[in-house]
Amino acid sequence: MHSEKTISWDTENTAILCIDQTKLPDKFIMIRCSTVERLITAIRRLEVRGAPALGVAGAFGVALAARKIREKDFERFVARLTIQSEKIKSARPTAVNLAWGVDLTLERALHAISVRDARRATLDQALSIAASDSRTCHMIGDVGISVLPDQGTVLTHCNAGALACSDWGTALGVIRSGVAAGKKIRVIACETRPLLQGSRLTAWELTREGIDVDVINDSAAAHIMRTGDIDLVIVGADRITPDVVFNKIGTYMHAVCAARHGIPFYVAAPLSTFDPDHTEVDITIEERAREEISICGKTRVVPDRAGVLNLAFDATPHSLVTGFITEVGVLCPPLDWEGIARRRKIIG
Amino acid sequence: MHSEKTISWDTENTAILCIDQTKLPDKFIMIRCSTVERLITAIRRLEVRGAPALGVAGAFGVALAARKIREKDFERFVARLTIQSEKIKSARPTAVNLAWGVDLTLERALHAISVRDARRATLDQALSIAASDSRTCHMIGDVGISVLPDQGTVLTHCNAGALACSDWGTALGVIRSGVAAGKKIRVIACETRPLLQGSRLTAWELTREGIDVDVINDSAAAHIMRTGDIDLVIVGADRITPDVVFNKIGTYMHAVCAARHGIPFYVAAPLSTFDPDHTEVDITIEERAREEISICGKTRVVPDRAGVLNLAFDATPHSLVTGFITEVGVLCPPLDWEGIARRRKIIG
Repeated sequence: MHSEKTISWDTENTAILCIDQTKLPDKFIMIRCSTVERLITAIRRLEVRGAPALGVAGAFGVALAARKIREKDFERFVARLTIQSEKIKSARPTAVNLAWGVDLTLERALHAISVRDARRATLDQALSIAASDSRTCHMIGDVGISVLPDQGTVLTHCNAGALACSDWGTALGVIRSGVAAGKKIRVIACETRPLLQGSRLTAWELTREGIDVDVINDSAAAHIMRTGDIDLVIVGADRITPDVVFNKIGTYMHAVCAARHGIPFYVAAPLSTFDPDHTEVDITIEERAREEISICGKTRVVPDRAGVLNLAFDATPHSLVTGFITEVGVLCPPLDWEGIARRRKIIG
Repeated sequence: MHSEKTISWDTENTAILCIDQTKLPDKFIMIRCSTVERLITAIRRLEVRGAPALGVAGAFGVALAARKIREKDFERFVARLTIQSEKIKSARPTAVNLAWGVDLTLERALHAISVRDARRATLDQALSIAASDSRTCHMIGDVGISVLPDQGTVLTHCNAGALACSDWGTALGVIRSGVAAGKKIRVIACETRPLLQGSRLTAWELTREGIDVDVINDSAAAHIMRTGDIDLVIVGADRITPDVVFNKIGTYMHAVCAARHGIPFYVAAPLSTFDPDHTEVDITIEERAREEISICGKTRVVPDRAGVLNLAFDATPHSLVTGFITEVGVLCPPLDWEGIARRRKIIG
């Protein structure tokens, strides 16, 4: 059954199944995306989110498009598939994995010999990315065990868990692996305004597995660091360029405060999140809708005449990162970007 | 009419009138507290909040109690008034002003010669504290003009505005005075989770006066500091001890991040907020109800099995404070505590 998977392929119905992450923890609802348009909506609404999961979503999106395009001529098929692929990539601009998953999968279609072959090849590729993502997360988890104390408190921000991936998670994957290895880990989950992925998703994932978790408002983290109750910080990433880590807004604040208190700050991410080809200035930080901040429940909490600045991500310089927990080991800055670029191609 | 005052005395009905700050900006509703119990509820629910306003509330509370206690014997009257006063003081433990307003007013009763004299004297004292608070805020505003650029952006947290005082405000008082003096000030208001005093109250106050304000989620402040868009930070305070500033949770995070970016960090507060008699370890940081974080609108956003840590305040060491904007000038650390203690008594 697919029912517990963040994102998966529904062979029977030629569709993509995802957990609707906007409804958790209140309701557990599956969404079936039978069209590329519905998938794009799901990505925009954050029904499916998290960098690695977006990589899988992008790949499945191309495979879905390949199956839905009614075109027998191969060249015209490829032209239409390319347009659909671009649409999927532009659904969210900051996370590199979405474009990475789309491009890898589209490439298989470009090298196919027929429409039929392209349909098969894109789905093979997408399924392989999904399976590899799950394996990668377990490897990240195993690698990360070494940075965890035998007993201690880890602060995390947003959700870099199973819900952000196919399975297991990156930052939460490290915590899961640590707990599985017998370590006594308590988690402080920052609620992560405005959309509360920390309280809604991270706390939900962890409580289901009996891992001790306390939710705080984001701005309390610095104070709790000061009082000595946090041993290390582990977050995920949406894009790692040679100069900065793009991740959920608030990550930079945690990095600055961790540095002030001498608390190790780790970023857990697969190599697919590393982007050797751009730097901070090239990347657009997504600005999201005013209503995410100005409406709480059904109540207007910001007066209409006030502006709202709703940035989805921020950028943390590598100098504030103790280490990157990846499937190939803990990489400490400065990074070997040639080696990373080489390995990224291999995993594709 | 009292309708626009944060808190005032209703002579006709022997009651305390306050704006219900939990309903703004959606609804403007006045609350009439005819009993001490209702006032305590208003304080606990944050219908009236903000350190200076709590000083006024405490004072009015004692005056109200003095009028409501049905007791002719002066000693028994004083004993009952003292008990009521202690109840008011314990409604919220962190802000020093509440206890300060209560104690100053109760002292007038203790030195009275009759119940009737005590009733008159406590109300005189409370009205004098309210009037003096308004004057003090204007003085703080005028003092603060010198720290503002002619044109620039000020970040503030929570609400240290007219709604936190009798009038004008402390941190927002500085901004109001600056704008009145012709400076072009844009404000970034941190929404201030969990109760959103920044988006609900600060943005409401500023837009009503045509002052340019943008609301952000709290965790975005560090990023915006990094991108160079903030010239200075001004916050209020709930209690200033010789070692730290207690203020709304999140203040410490802003102070750490401002220091990292070389951004001046000011605390605007009347001398009544200074507490020469305690240090950080003596003060209880109020923990508030789980539901403030776990419920959004009417939706449960934290799973029941997850813990919630809801600290109302944090503590910022003086070393991170550029200056304290007070009614007697901008005081830079290290502070002259003997002078402050002397002046605090005079203002009483």
